[in-house]
Amino acid sequence: MLSNIPNATLKRLALYRRCFVELDEMRVRRIQSGELSQKIGIDSATIRRDFSYLGELGRQGYGYEVRVVLEAFNNLLKPDDAQRCILIGVGNLGRALVKYFSSDKFKRRLFRTPVNLVAGFDIDESLVGQHIGELPIYHLDNLSSYIEENHVTYVILAVPPFVAQKVATSLEGLGIKGILNLSSTVINVSEDILVHEVDLNMELETLFFYVFQREQLKK
Amino acid sequence: MLSNIPNATLKRLALYRRCFVELDEMRVRRIQSGELSQKIGIDSATIRRDFSYLGELGRQGYGYEVRVVLEAFNNLLKPDDAQRCILIGVGNLGRALVKYFSSDKFKRRLFRTPVNLVAGFDIDESLVGQHIGELPIYHLDNLSSYIEENHVTYVILAVPPFVAQKVATSLEGLGIKGILNLSSTVINVSEDILVHEVDLNMELETLFFYVFQREQLKK
Repeated sequence: MLSNIPNATLKRLALYRRCFVELDEMRVRRIQSGELSQKIGIDSATIRRDFSYLGELGRQGYGYEVRVVLEAFNNLLKPDDAQRCILIGVGNLGRALVKYFSSDKFKRRLFRTPVNLVAGFDIDESLVGQHIGELPIYHLDNLSSYIEENHVTYVILAVPPFVAQKVATSLEGLGIKGILNLSSTVINVSEDILVHEVDLNMELETLFFYVFQREQLKK
Repeated sequence: MLSNIPNATLKRLALYRRCFVELDEMRVRRIQSGELSQKIGIDSATIRRDFSYLGELGRQGYGYEVRVVLEAFNNLLKPDDAQRCILIGVGNLGRALVKYFSSDKFKRRLFRTPVNLVAGFDIDESLVGQHIGELPIYHLDNLSSYIEENHVTYVILAVPPFVAQKVATSLEGLGIKGILNLSSTVINVSEDILVHEVDLNMELETLFFYVFQREQLKK
């Protein structure tokens, strides 16, 4: 069902899903694409086109049943088979994610992200052997054996930029499918591994570019 | 010069800029669009089109002078007039940014992001009155008076989702131009304020969607 979804649509799916999880938690049962559009700032036509890739989810004039949409997302994300994921680099950014995934709010969530964060890795001796919340922290030296023994498929890479490529290279050939790269630099890996990058400083700059553009247009 | 740059191009500018800053720090003086393309995973035609909006930056077959490109970005970002920015919510995510902006590496950088992070705000009494690095932390009660007195124009919003809208609403009418929303929920504000949102959990889900799509296509 998920084949041939354009990249532009794939990029928006997580935003839609989060919105529907919030609607469900507010006990909203149904929403029109127009309302949804206002809520998330994406035009209705785009929403309807994007949703058409997920199956028959809504009827003209009736809107979308919140639970039906969430079930459709669940089918895509296979929550029964949560993705085994490790965190490499347990600094502030890494901790923010650990805290989020170990929060009661997240765990109690009916339609939560199907991620199973199983271990953290660092080289800081004061962290190794400790737990952050429930997450055990191991030394980076044990990385490859851990990944193979525990069938880990996803990595959140939150190490400093100057070691990011070295760590990324050490992940090759171990069965990793995807890396969320938070290391503030480009990493190059073989095509088996998909990399999705987020750099908060870059996002702040992007906001500046948007604002400057807007001010330019006002003149 | 920055007028009428398409949104798709605006979104990529920070990535280009970061790459050229790195090239400059590695003392690379010139790069071809083909090499650049390999480095950042964007095709050469798109790069050349994007760069055409920034002025006459390269010549056919010669490539781009790194410093010339960086100067062009600097003209857009007006670094002499750094953007006064505050952080609301001093948790792990907020601290990660504070640490980054107060690092020597960032401060020594010749072509750094023109941001001046001037204060943090929280309601946690154990934080209020303290400093994180050099950043003074004030109580949220002092938010609006601080913004007006100090001509703050940007906000990094890193509060929990359930208070995000309330805090965002309190920012109206104070001269704020942009919000980097890290609060993991949609916020609605008047059109004067541009909101750019990043949710790390959503980014992880987006990676899952990309990987699932790829696996589907393999079948």
